[in-house]
Amino acid sequence: MNSTTFPDSDAAIVEIKHQYHALFEPSSVAIVGASPSPLKWGFRILLNTKLGGYKGALYAVNPKHKEIIGIECFPTITDIPGELDLAVIVLPPQFVLESIRECAARGVRACVVITAGFGETKDSAAHLSQEEMARIARDAGMLLVGPNCAGIASPDPHSLYSGMVYRYPKSGGFSLVSQSGNVGMTVLTWAELHQVGVARFVSSGNEAVLRSEDYIHFFGHDTRTKAILAYIEGTTDGRRFFNALRETTKRKPVVVVKGGTTSAGQQAANSHTGALAGPTPLFVSACRQAGANVAEDFYQAMELTSAFVNQPLPRGRRVVIVSEGGGWGVIGADACAKAGLDLIPLPEGVLQELDTILPGWWSRGNPIDLVAGNDRTMMTRAIECVLKCPEVDAVLVLGVGYMSSRAAEMHRVPELAEMGMGKLIDAACDVELHEVRKINSLIDLYDKPIIVASDTVLLAYGATPNAAIREMERLGVYAYSSPHNAAHTLENMAERYEYLNNIPRK
Amino acid sequence: MNSTTFPDSDAAIVEIKHQYHALFEPSSVAIVGASPSPLKWGFRILLNTKLGGYKGALYAVNPKHKEIIGIECFPTITDIPGELDLAVIVLPPQFVLESIRECAARGVRACVVITAGFGETKDSAAHLSQEEMARIARDAGMLLVGPNCAGIASPDPHSLYSGMVYRYPKSGGFSLVSQSGNVGMTVLTWAELHQVGVARFVSSGNEAVLRSEDYIHFFGHDTRTKAILAYIEGTTDGRRFFNALRETTKRKPVVVVKGGTTSAGQQAANSHTGALAGPTPLFVSACRQAGANVAEDFYQAMELTSAFVNQPLPRGRRVVIVSEGGGWGVIGADACAKAGLDLIPLPEGVLQELDTILPGWWSRGNPIDLVAGNDRTMMTRAIECVLKCPEVDAVLVLGVGYMSSRAAEMHRVPELAEMGMGKLIDAACDVELHEVRKINSLIDLYDKPIIVASDTVLLAYGATPNAAIREMERLGVYAYSSPHNAAHTLENMAERYEYLNNIPRK
Repeated sequence: MNSTTFPDSDAAIVEIKHQYHALFEPSSVAIVGASPSPLKWGFRILLNTKLGGYKGALYAVNPKHKEIIGIECFPTITDIPGELDLAVIVLPPQFVLESIRECAARGVRACVVITAGFGETKDSAAHLSQEEMARIARDAGMLLVGPNCAGIASPDPHSLYSGMVYRYPKSGGFSLVSQSGNVGMTVLTWAELHQVGVARFVSSGNEAVLRSEDYIHFFGHDTRTKAILAYIEGTTDGRRFFNALRETTKRKPVVVVKGGTTSAGQQAANSHTGALAGPTPLFVSACRQAGANVAEDFYQAMELTSAFVNQPLPRGRRVVIVSEGGGWGVIGADACAKAGLDLIPLPEGVLQELDTILPGWWSRGNPIDLVAGNDRTMMTRAIECVLKCPEVDAVLVLGVGYMSSRAAEMHRVPELAEMGMGKLIDAACDVELHEVRKINSLIDLYDKPIIVASDTVLLAYGATPNAAIREMERLGVYAYSSPHNAAHTLENMAERYEYLNNIPRK
Repeated sequence: MNSTTFPDSDAAIVEIKHQYHALFEPSSVAIVGASPSPLKWGFRILLNTKLGGYKGALYAVNPKHKEIIGIECFPTITDIPGELDLAVIVLPPQFVLESIRECAARGVRACVVITAGFGETKDSAAHLSQEEMARIARDAGMLLVGPNCAGIASPDPHSLYSGMVYRYPKSGGFSLVSQSGNVGMTVLTWAELHQVGVARFVSSGNEAVLRSEDYIHFFGHDTRTKAILAYIEGTTDGRRFFNALRETTKRKPVVVVKGGTTSAGQQAANSHTGALAGPTPLFVSACRQAGANVAEDFYQAMELTSAFVNQPLPRGRRVVIVSEGGGWGVIGADACAKAGLDLIPLPEGVLQELDTILPGWWSRGNPIDLVAGNDRTMMTRAIECVLKCPEVDAVLVLGVGYMSSRAAEMHRVPELAEMGMGKLIDAACDVELHEVRKINSLIDLYDKPIIVASDTVLLAYGATPNAAIREMERLGVYAYSSPHNAAHTLENMAERYEYLNNIPRK
């Protein structure tokens, strides 16, 4: 049994970090059960590790081959020269135990067991095998991830992407533990699309040894991790899980997505990971009490985690909306109000300053409607005017990147080129790029969050990428496609601020 | 005053359709106030109409030019030869009334007034101008859209995209009236991205003459329109609005998104279109009573409208999930249960048939977890097995297009090409394409909806497009990015079935 509490002495933490570095920052990796057949997982795991550009020593293990897709192949783990930090095991189930024994004997420091067919099945022999694999790993002091998992990733420092997941997001502060491989894949896909930087990803599988709470605890002490997302279907030891959560949320934000919140979902979770889901309302309220943010939808959860990494917390719920369009402003106001955020009336000083920035007929209210002018600097001037006001905790910006979006269309018109308009269009796009960078710098300057939502995101990654949106996301300012999701993030950031400062939650 | 009821005699409907065809299917269009300056709306409206590939006779009106971006330019509307169906007016506000008088005298059949600065302002003279423009149009029997609107679009039959909105979705059955130009733009952007076919789009602006309910009434009788989306901030005459809604929902699905459902949102709506929003809970329940579906989020509304166009209604709430991955299955089950859908136990006959299709260790439950096999035909065989069962009303499919998604990565590996793997990969993608077409044909064959959600959608339109997702969307099967939104659509489709068949709603 694992202990219900976690060590917290400095020496113990150093030891834990040292152990987990074998998993996330290995200098050498062996793919055991690597295969040259593209239909096999042993092929894909090797391929993905290679495509991910792993910078350490990469080996394949398969007695029938000398080399697979350019990677040197050894008959057994024992034949690999030198130290071996990590073994990723993709063998058929009947060979897994023997391989883990070999790893233990060889002094391998960490194992990731991709192979399924153990504790998640109804077969008692398979359950016994899983227990045996846990015993061997524990006795050898070897970390063990899985079995029945989709692998791990850690872009920094060695560009490790070793799993089923053929996605290679850049490095950053977002860490993820998922009890589902395909939810993990969704997160990595989303992160790659939106240029969200990832610190660590682990698919925890059947959790024979390492459980969700172990990763959460490590992430809490991990220098690279700034915020944590956990997809949880069930816990083996609730007390231990909530202990880890309570300790970690003091240090870093943890966003929990609970799978199996209905009886239909719980049944599905049972047959999926064999996890025994407890009564959900209790689980969710216990998560909140332990200081975690709980999201129902995993897109909202990803967006929130990313905001925790990249944005300062609002010091209250007072929000001003700056909008490029009336309808989005209305919907944004609704979304904020429903989320328990306060759309404050604009203070007199702010009104007066905005009168000098905006056209005469502006609405003098919150949302601030920019009335679709041609001056692309109007938006950031309005944002700064609002953001520096001490009565404002956060700004929600609706509509960014319209010039870049329009430019693609305008470049299609030969008459415009003949008129020499190309340069004018490009200049307007440059101004917009500059404004996007300014938004990013204002967040830092005033230490307040600016949440941006825009429909230009929809086509931002298509045939004609939106340069403004891409630049903004490159800088770490995520572009929400809907005011609802943006308000959800702001609400949860305010919740975390209230939690950290013992303010009764709304 | 407009009458509170709508004519319903065959002759009256023919007359109404004839009138609206001048607006949506004009043979000739003049952009009044066209400009060669790219900073002006008069430029953009003309450019967008040209880029949209309008097939009728297109004219510009501006006394200072002979030609603008290749379009012949006339000094006045009166100078344009022949009949003129539609005038799109983009003049400065002080010239609009005179221009409308000229249109009326000239026998123009419909006017779209883009120009703002009328009823939405606090200026009483501007309000009077708007009343005058309405009077002139009514006296002349001329349709008038706006003022303060973003224009119109109707891909069929003449490829008309005449407005601020530089998006050109393909033609189809989705019609939209929006009291906000930028919400309209969001819908067209989304439609373009997901290949959703549009019948008519109109931004109704200040609704000086034609109001949301007039368009809804016309759409109800319009052959090209299959389903209607209405973004509403407020109504001038609630009784008239609900009369139109009640009549139309008997014929076609109407999805209403209400902007200003909170007091913060209502205030924003007031300063946006000057619309007086009634008490929202009343408005929303009145919409439901009138047979409309009401959505809070406009993405959910768009997805639902598109499903109404392309999918048959489920004849009940009994749903089976077919999933490529465990976690998505769990979340999908939760989402269905929360939406009031019944995840039924699989009938014995279905279980037995699935035993012959799926690997021995499959979970024998709903969700059906496909256990990530290599046989790409397994999914459609499982779907068909379930769909043909009389106890199943709809199938929710989670995870499509993984082969196409993976192929892009595999093509990056030179070793695979050397091994001659390229052809194998392409063949697997072809199988997947075939399966996607099969999903589409199964919907038709069994006359039941198949709703598809997949995270492969996220990168489907990026640098390496996902051929399977694109083909599926081309065929009209929308790809949801989240199980939540998919369940929202299914729930609302079931609601509509219940409404049409007088079944008490859940």
